[in-house]
Amino acid sequence: MAERVEGFNFEQRHGKERVRVARLWKTKEGKHYVVEWRVGISLFSDCVNSYLRDDNSDIVATDTMKNTVYAKAKECSEILSVENFAIELAKHFISFYRQVTTAIVNIVEKPWERIIVDGQPHMHGFKLGSERHTVEAIVKKSGALQLTSGVEGLSVLKTTKSGFEGFIRDKYTALPETRERMLATEVTGLWRYSYESLSSVPQKPLYFMERYGDVKRVLLETFFGPPNVGVYSPSVQSTLYQMARATLNRFPDIDSVQLKMPNIHFLPVNISNTGGQIVKFNDDVYLPTDEPHGSIQATLSRFWSKM
Amino acid sequence: MAERVEGFNFEQRHGKERVRVARLWKTKEGKHYVVEWRVGISLFSDCVNSYLRDDNSDIVATDTMKNTVYAKAKECSEILSVENFAIELAKHFISFYRQVTTAIVNIVEKPWERIIVDGQPHMHGFKLGSERHTVEAIVKKSGALQLTSGVEGLSVLKTTKSGFEGFIRDKYTALPETRERMLATEVTGLWRYSYESLSSVPQKPLYFMERYGDVKRVLLETFFGPPNVGVYSPSVQSTLYQMARATLNRFPDIDSVQLKMPNIHFLPVNISNTGGQIVKFNDDVYLPTDEPHGSIQATLSRFWSKM
Amino acid sequence: MAERVEGFNFEQRHGKERVRVARLWKTKEGKHYVVEWRVGISLFSDCVNSYLRDDNSDIVATDTMKNTVYAKAKECSEILSVENFAIELAKHFISFYRQVTTAIVNIVEKPWERIIVDGQPHMHGFKLGSERHTVEAIVKKSGALQLTSGVEGLSVLKTTKSGFEGFIRDKYTALPETRERMLATEVTGLWRYSYESLSSVPQKPLYFMERYGDVKRVLLETFFGPPNVGVYSPSVQSTLYQMARATLNRFPDIDSVQLKMPNIHFLPVNISNTGGQIVKFNDDVYLPTDEPHGSIQATLSRFWSKM
Amino acid sequence: MAERVEGFNFEQRHGKERVRVARLWKTKEGKHYVVEWRVGISLFSDCVNSYLRDDNSDIVATDTMKNTVYAKAKECSEILSVENFAIELAKHFISFYRQVTTAIVNIVEKPWERIIVDGQPHMHGFKLGSERHTVEAIVKKSGALQLTSGVEGLSVLKTTKSGFEGFIRDKYTALPETRERMLATEVTGLWRYSYESLSSVPQKPLYFMERYGDVKRVLLETFFGPPNVGVYSPSVQSTLYQMARATLNRFPDIDSVQLKMPNIHFLPVNISNTGGQIVKFNDDVYLPTDEPHGSIQATLSRFWSKM
Repeated sequence: MAERVEGFNFEQRHGKERVRVARLWKTKEGKHYVVEWRVGISLFSDCVNSYLRDDNSDIVATDTMKNTVYAKAKECSEILSVENFAIELAKHFISFYRQVTTAIVNIVEKPWERIIVDGQPHMHGFKLGSERHTVEAIVKKSGALQLTSGVEGLSVLKTTKSGFEGFIRDKYTALPETRERMLATEVTGLWRYSYESLSSVPQKPLYFMERYGDVKRVLLETFFGPPNVGVYSPSVQSTLYQMARATLNRFPDIDSVQLKMPNIHFLPVNISNTGGQIVKFNDDVYLPTDEPHGSIQATLSRFWSKM
Repeated sequence: MAERVEGFNFEQRHGKERVRVARLWKTKEGKHYVVEWRVGISLFSDCVNSYLRDDNSDIVATDTMKNTVYAKAKECSEILSVENFAIELAKHFISFYRQVTTAIVNIVEKPWERIIVDGQPHMHGFKLGSERHTVEAIVKKSGALQLTSGVEGLSVLKTTKSGFEGFIRDKYTALPETRERMLATEVTGLWRYSYESLSSVPQKPLYFMERYGDVKRVLLETFFGPPNVGVYSPSVQSTLYQMARATLNRFPDIDSVQLKMPNIHFLPVNISNTGGQIVKFNDDVYLPTDEPHGSIQATLSRFWSKM
Repeated sequence: MAERVEGFNFEQRHGKERVRVARLWKTKEGKHYVVEWRVGISLFSDCVNSYLRDDNSDIVATDTMKNTVYAKAKECSEILSVENFAIELAKHFISFYRQVTTAIVNIVEKPWERIIVDGQPHMHGFKLGSERHTVEAIVKKSGALQLTSGVEGLSVLKTTKSGFEGFIRDKYTALPETRERMLATEVTGLWRYSYESLSSVPQKPLYFMERYGDVKRVLLETFFGPPNVGVYSPSVQSTLYQMARATLNRFPDIDSVQLKMPNIHFLPVNISNTGGQIVKFNDDVYLPTDEPHGSIQATLSRFWSKM
Repeated sequence: MAERVEGFNFEQRHGKERVRVARLWKTKEGKHYVVEWRVGISLFSDCVNSYLRDDNSDIVATDTMKNTVYAKAKECSEILSVENFAIELAKHFISFYRQVTTAIVNIVEKPWERIIVDGQPHMHGFKLGSERHTVEAIVKKSGALQLTSGVEGLSVLKTTKSGFEGFIRDKYTALPETRERMLATEVTGLWRYSYESLSSVPQKPLYFMERYGDVKRVLLETFFGPPNVGVYSPSVQSTLYQMARATLNRFPDIDSVQLKMPNIHFLPVNISNTGGQIVKFNDDVYLPTDEPHGSIQATLSRFWSKM
């Protein structure tokens, strides 16, 4: 999307970030559904004159983008997935403005979960959960679509069935080999759907919300293994790969999975002084630490599709 | 705890903050239990010479405090509540060091929750939840105890049955009255137990862990009301008071409850331009906002006990 | 400020947090002055009926408090210190509302600093600096005042002239003694002025702004010592005390100083493997770490004044 | 860097993030120089077997990477720029390990600034400043280099000489046109150098440190204009473009500049109630807000070089 200006190569985009909106729907029976979204919009747009000279005539004001988020949320008379809202919003920008060639909409959904009181789901009560559902919809003027859903903040810990052995040993290596350690990570996952045009997207308004739950379940089950015995992890790399492969194998309409799984270390605690050992580690006391952390990241795709 | 030095009044404390420790326990059947704690220690100690002159002979090094956290965690051969660990640690400092007159131990427990896979609790798999269990134990050389448990980050939202009417109207008032609004808050709760000496604390190692769950349940049930009809909130103040009172009424060994319940506003969205209304609010589209927010806080105690 | 309700002891306050306001002043010559404040307000108020029953008739809505911040900022036709604004605001609440017995106003000033371009101060250009100026004004209906200014985020580092020796050695102690280490801290300072009534406050509108600069200078000079030789610090405790004492000695209208000076450790780096030492420390390579950190805090006051 | 595995397309990298290191140098005269870096390392490496099966024999442990940071910092016997350290580190990984095809090193330098005491620079005293110097060095086995320096957290504000007019008006537009507003942004800048091989990098150890200061100065001078009169900004877009162009025009060894300049809004404050206007805006009272904010970003490059 580069162009030539004044002898330079030039690429630009503008948009609005952190537009927060909540949308409430009510059934006739008085059951409430609510979502809270943080929306980011980025437009690729023919508006180079605003950069080069005092001419903003091709600029969609970012304040207008913000208003549009609210106007479009209002138009959604039925509950819909965050993916569908992102697509609707992106579609609006490429169709409403001749200057806009591509619209990118990113949304993070706050995990409000219906609360259980006295063993029953509450009609209008919600409590904040932990990990977050994300989406990025990229829509081009042609109607071409790139739809990527994700999860962020999914922190998991297994207290055994993890090791790391046989890695390169050289003069900078001090890490001992082990077949017994904690394995903790905060998964950031992204999965790209195979729907490549606006017209090909499934019509069910909550289709992608169900998918989100199902993908999380596959990721977690692969990470932890069966409830009674678990599954041995020879490395974060290996576990990550199993999780990505299981996702592609299970969901035919997902073309590509990217996983970032930092290795959040739980260090064995051994402390000594001249009188001897103060604390001697025996798979019992650990120092959890956020920095430094290992970073392991990979993308697995069908054929040559790109994340 | 003030003293006179060089003609001034002087108060001091020193300690160690953000000591992170995880402790793992395993049953013979291979079931794992794990806790992750962030420990803060503050000592009131007779060590004024370290301030006034180059004499550290009465100082417990903060590095030593850190080591002690690990050594004491090691000594805990059976799973115990965070409250019991805080008390043990505080007790150590006042009894081990003649200089230490009072020890304050604060701990935040990270909400690792056993994961369910295939409908069954996993033997060694955990996932991070949302709100956090906290404790402060203050122990004096005499054995006097002040034990305060708490919850932080408990974010809740009800989408109806909330209003705010009849407040003071003056020349600075613009807020309309309403009987229909969202009510969202992030509860920080503290409850002080009636056990006032080390010897009076219940012996069951998980007693306080159960209490934590029970108090949260009472707070939530009072906030939301019955699952089918909810309960009307005429103000955050009123709801807060109901929650505090229900806690004292239900738990005889809790003497005092402090609740901080910021009013996290979900603003009605109305947007106009010269052509008319772009978005007209109809209890459907809201702008959630963190700043500014109302702050409502109160402490309810039995008789004249103090928080 | 406790009262008896339904057989319980009850204390409450309400207010508004994170009200952000910027105020711009222009001289006739076109020189601009700007401040950006984040205001928090807490009112102690006779409004117990709002807690006990559906009666808000004694409640100042927090939205009204927010509006008042803007209205009062507007009224300030001349530049004034953040302390003076806090006092004005608190004074308004206790005098305007019969229900309000005490008002607490906390403000953090964002450190916008006039930028130098071509060696000259810019007429209307500002850049964000680092540490922040804070204030708390507590005003009672009687006109009694408690005024505490402060600085937060003042991060300092000296790379020598610091040691720690002669502290208690016991079975939990592993820290070696040293006369050569880094000393880093993030100072949070609070100083309380001796003006104890609204009428006694100095009239110069920028009096406290100058004081703020002067106090910082004294704190920094005491921490670092002379530019060529520095000053030896036998402990954070000792350095903290010197800083507090210098402040009281220098400023007769400051009655009390509280300093929090976490010891932000720069750990010597020594790494070994079975083949020998990978990195051997020689006062050259350090691991800076935020957690855990030592916490040292003290208050020095004239006579028996209280922080 | 994709490869084919088990019928899928696969891309991977691993590394270590948030490795913190401080390096101290001393002159014979006792003048100290200190840097504090937060280092991130990412390796593209032939180690697919660690993902596919229990074989870590081609894996550089991330703990080894961490040790290497300290070992290399130790080897730097003279002060050097963060850019030079990043290059050294990346060079090590591609040359020391046959498996590593590309190394990416990212560093953020903490802005410790020598303090002035009594008008003189201190020999060993430092205070934390505001914006941060960043670098990314990408080095391939061939010796090909991509070197990108940057600044983050550079927050600036001009209180006049900014407007926004003539933009698209449609049914979602509510923003009024103006020739008088605040302009605030937090600049994130990245500039790529023209040195495309390890051998072409300038030998002066502080060359890039000087460049960093010079680039910042050009960015700031262009943003603010002359100290007495400033310069009118018709849009963030226009100001951003001027800043990028000035940088390329001034520094022949910079090939490409990317600027992200969120429009951090200072909203005019107008508040009304039924009785009339509580606050009426007159270019004096503003509400500064972080969310939502405009996002404006562009890259300007010589010819067809890529950021």
